[in-house]
Amino acid sequence: MAKGFTIWFTGMSGAGKTTLARLIEAELKNREHRVEVLDGDIIRTNLSKGLGFSKEDRDTNIRRIGFVCNLLTRNEVVAIAAAISPYREVRDEVRQMIGSFVEVYVKCPIEVLAERDVKGLYKRAFAGEIEHFTGIDDPYEEPLSPEAVVETDTETPEQSAAQILAKLEEMNLIAPALPDAYSDEDDEEIRRRLEALGYV
Amino acid sequence: MAKGFTIWFTGMSGAGKTTLARLIEAELKNREHRVEVLDGDIIRTNLSKGLGFSKEDRDTNIRRIGFVCNLLTRNEVVAIAAAISPYREVRDEVRQMIGSFVEVYVKCPIEVLAERDVKGLYKRAFAGEIEHFTGIDDPYEEPLSPEAVVETDTETPEQSAAQILAKLEEMNLIAPALPDAYSDEDDEEIRRRLEALGYV
Repeated sequence: MAKGFTIWFTGMSGAGKTTLARLIEAELKNREHRVEVLDGDIIRTNLSKGLGFSKEDRDTNIRRIGFVCNLLTRNEVVAIAAAISPYREVRDEVRQMIGSFVEVYVKCPIEVLAERDVKGLYKRAFAGEIEHFTGIDDPYEEPLSPEAVVETDTETPEQSAAQILAKLEEMNLIAPALPDAYSDEDDEEIRRRLEALGYV
Repeated sequence: MAKGFTIWFTGMSGAGKTTLARLIEAELKNREHRVEVLDGDIIRTNLSKGLGFSKEDRDTNIRRIGFVCNLLTRNEVVAIAAAISPYREVRDEVRQMIGSFVEVYVKCPIEVLAERDVKGLYKRAFAGEIEHFTGIDDPYEEPLSPEAVVETDTETPEQSAAQILAKLEEMNLIAPALPDAYSDEDDEEIRRRLEALGYV
């Protein structure tokens, strides 16, 4: 049975958390893992309707996502959270609860985010039409020692995803995608035999 | 891999939902199922803090429990919900979403509940100190066609649990606890051979 663990994407709005979550989801499903993505928007609809964006409400939202990730993780599911989760302390609280936890900082300079502005939110936030906007009038606390940092202003989503998958392999949470069928020793043994037979 | 499904206990406060949930949890874990109990109190702490007991808030609470049960069920976990869930419509909504759904009505006359009154809530509710109390000034809508009905005023918890387990076996959601190693046909074949050999 594959291990359960939680991949926790944190970063500002528009940085690419959901895109990466979906890429990783697809790749892990290909590798026969059971996977659930808990996207910030899905959670705000299903578990946190009525919560706002004060620090207290944000922390409550993150604890709820953490609660569900923990239920999934301890039942051998890969839970992927994609939520801004701007506060370090509650991220660390969730990490402690879950244990098998891979924090991925999805990093992108705010100038680039404001330039992209896929949802038009930065424009509205800079105009003062949205309050409590992370990175503008609300803080974002960078992780101090995340398991991975991806920089989405210079990497393609595929490059970022590959880096995360490599980290999961390194942590022995997933098996390598294309394991070499022969070890170096096997290779050497084969070469030696072929040589003895005069083939090489 | 064992199937995931949801057992949904519904019934009034003190009827025995949590007791039965814990008995069934223990028995299914013995049978190697992965099981999570989503108890009303656990959920109100972790997912629904701030919600009250209006119809709207109760429905929201039930939808949240349903959302989590669905995540677990589709990942081969047995989710056991134990919440009053007094409204038929939202229970049916959750049933539709989850699909593999076993509704168990934990039935007990209010006179017996008021007499037991383990948490002292009925006394306070009858005295008017608690509003929106199911069965007193708030409705409880009995299920119209639950998969099982247990009557906790006349059955022991073990009897009720046995009835529920039998239902799960009948629905092919779990394997029988002590499967007969030989089928009737096997038995007949064995008898025939022993007879041919003069042993019976």
